[in-house]
Amino acid sequence: MDFNTISSGTVTSPRGFIAGAVHAGIKSGNRLDLAVFYSEVPCTAAGLFTTNQIKSAPVVLSQKHLMDNRAQAIVVNSGCANACTGEQGLADAAEMASLTAARLGMSPEDVLAASTGVIGVPLPIELIRAGIDKIEFSRRGGHELARAIMTTDTCAKEIAISVSMGGDEFTIAGVAKGAGMIHPNLATMLCFLASDAAVDAAFLHRALEKAVGNSFNMITVDGDTSPSDSVFLLANELAGNQLITDDNGEAFQEGLNEVCLYLAKCIAADGEGATKLIEVVVEGAGNEKEARLAARAIAGSTLVKTAMHGGNPNWGRIITALGETDVQLVETKMDLYLNDVCVMKEGTPMSLDMHRAKASLDNKEILIKLRLNVGGGRATAWGCDLSEEYVTINSAYMT
Amino acid sequence: MDFNTISSGTVTSPRGFIAGAVHAGIKSGNRLDLAVFYSEVPCTAAGLFTTNQIKSAPVVLSQKHLMDNRAQAIVVNSGCANACTGEQGLADAAEMASLTAARLGMSPEDVLAASTGVIGVPLPIELIRAGIDKIEFSRRGGHELARAIMTTDTCAKEIAISVSMGGDEFTIAGVAKGAGMIHPNLATMLCFLASDAAVDAAFLHRALEKAVGNSFNMITVDGDTSPSDSVFLLANELAGNQLITDDNGEAFQEGLNEVCLYLAKCIAADGEGATKLIEVVVEGAGNEKEARLAARAIAGSTLVKTAMHGGNPNWGRIITALGETDVQLVETKMDLYLNDVCVMKEGTPMSLDMHRAKASLDNKEILIKLRLNVGGGRATAWGCDLSEEYVTINSAYMT
Repeated sequence: MDFNTISSGTVTSPRGFIAGAVHAGIKSGNRLDLAVFYSEVPCTAAGLFTTNQIKSAPVVLSQKHLMDNRAQAIVVNSGCANACTGEQGLADAAEMASLTAARLGMSPEDVLAASTGVIGVPLPIELIRAGIDKIEFSRRGGHELARAIMTTDTCAKEIAISVSMGGDEFTIAGVAKGAGMIHPNLATMLCFLASDAAVDAAFLHRALEKAVGNSFNMITVDGDTSPSDSVFLLANELAGNQLITDDNGEAFQEGLNEVCLYLAKCIAADGEGATKLIEVVVEGAGNEKEARLAARAIAGSTLVKTAMHGGNPNWGRIITALGETDVQLVETKMDLYLNDVCVMKEGTPMSLDMHRAKASLDNKEILIKLRLNVGGGRATAWGCDLSEEYVTINSAYMT
Repeated sequence: MDFNTISSGTVTSPRGFIAGAVHAGIKSGNRLDLAVFYSEVPCTAAGLFTTNQIKSAPVVLSQKHLMDNRAQAIVVNSGCANACTGEQGLADAAEMASLTAARLGMSPEDVLAASTGVIGVPLPIELIRAGIDKIEFSRRGGHELARAIMTTDTCAKEIAISVSMGGDEFTIAGVAKGAGMIHPNLATMLCFLASDAAVDAAFLHRALEKAVGNSFNMITVDGDTSPSDSVFLLANELAGNQLITDDNGEAFQEGLNEVCLYLAKCIAADGEGATKLIEVVVEGAGNEKEARLAARAIAGSTLVKTAMHGGNPNWGRIITALGETDVQLVETKMDLYLNDVCVMKEGTPMSLDMHRAKASLDNKEILIKLRLNVGGGRATAWGCDLSEEYVTINSAYMT
């Protein structure tokens, strides 16, 4: 198999996908805040949702609409999360889906919904009614969609790759938003994935779980999850490939992993106020589960994040963040590297060339590598530094 | 029973306790960084320690020295945590205790040790050797001790209260340091408690656990715990009271609760960069354990902390932080108050007088009250806001 990243690729790059967005007036300024994404033909679909007990109205609606593993469109707004909005919120989410279905001439049950923005404020449904009518659709509309879902994101996050498998060729693409309230297990993030491949429904769901498990579930910005997190994957079969199932699913899985990993790293690097992407690799843990826990604990530590922001090789904070978990540790076996500098060997501090250690932390990408040397578990997590700018954004912003 | 706060009280206020501190040179400037605290006579003693798997060398030593429930002195330094320092660290901690024992003419096993500061750097034992010799002791030395243990604390934290119980009168006092790496289950905090009461050893330990459970274990500054956290309680019997046991321990327990609660709130309010003390009260939880979990999750949420810093009544973040826990929730039963303003009633947003809501968040103390209305569990947690200053401190500071 073979991947090729499509130049200027977006979620409408796969055959038969179309999108459009408008400024409906939910956000101030003239920023895009309402978008619709759909396939010309019905799709096999899968979704994953927030683990937060408090779920937004569109999450509740979309979970219901995905029970038949079919969907054809997604309607999404930014500027208001439609979460903690009671009965009215559920009615508003249902109306968003119905309005979209009427505009596109399909059943409301085939429309998924997503909202991101302030929690606890009613959705301005009259703006959405007027907005959906005004959307103009195009095959390049994926780029507008990518901008319409941004909140405090500083850049659009999108990718499309073409995958060759035997004689078949298909495309997998995705668009995502992140920025704040980002934490393992789907924090405030939205990700819409599309493929023109023909994929078996049960396999599609498992493939999505696997890809998300090693990408979106391994990033953290601030340790807070949100009621709105949703990942949708629509596959419309227009590539005319042989149906993808467990038996021949390897290429699709690897392609999907690639797309999710790219978007997840974009989200981590563009965390609110972030100036650096931090990659945490844990090797030699008792098992993979412990490796994942350890990597996420380190990437999520406030004190590690501030140290990395300041280019401060204060590695004691990394060991401390690890010590808070119940991951199996033998202090005298642990080795720790900051970029290429070994700062601790077998639990004993190495005499540190502070100049070299500090200089390597000036990079935009920082690698923290920890060898626990108690087993074969390995995992990677991604996070970002914590800056004064993060605090400024979140002191003022009504998320 | 009856409490009276002693004016300018400190940990040497109870009969027979003496302390002194010097600038040994571990910290820069002329700041005090080494102190010894002791009782003229042997004490019944209890200790509680960090739950972090990585424990500093003085924590390992003090746990050993407390196995007989007896202690007579504490030696403490700031500027270096003596954690992640391997075998040499353990030898250095033992030497600190031995030097103190020699200076005071007691057994090393009766000396407890504590260190706070940078992790992963060897203890400058030669400075400690010279420093211990230079300490001058006095009955008012508690105030110097309180300053010597400060790291990024902006003020000393100390209190003494006198307790009357029947015909007996005794004193309970404490000194603490906090500031950063503060989280439930004893984060980077040190607290030394002293009493001149005669107290049964088993009761003393249980009383300490109870008092710490509702005070130091219910505060959070940044969600990171440390390898150094220690709470020591020494009781020297010089008050001549009837021995305190389970049967007559109520007044001692309440006095100890009072002292621990005062010091814990001081630590939360003086969190690194903090400008506000946040009190989170959870009522009507399924049980007390769930109430504690809910209160701590809210007090610990980065997004709640930044919102409170900006005086931003963005209460959706409170509900979201709660939703991340597995505490029993019924969204349609939940009521939420910011200070005296009801922002959500039975899961539905109240139309908010933003001006009034924002104005009430300008206070130095903010009360978040949540009624879950599913049971009788109740708990209170304390935290602080998260400011740009916190990030600035932690980007530069070698903790």
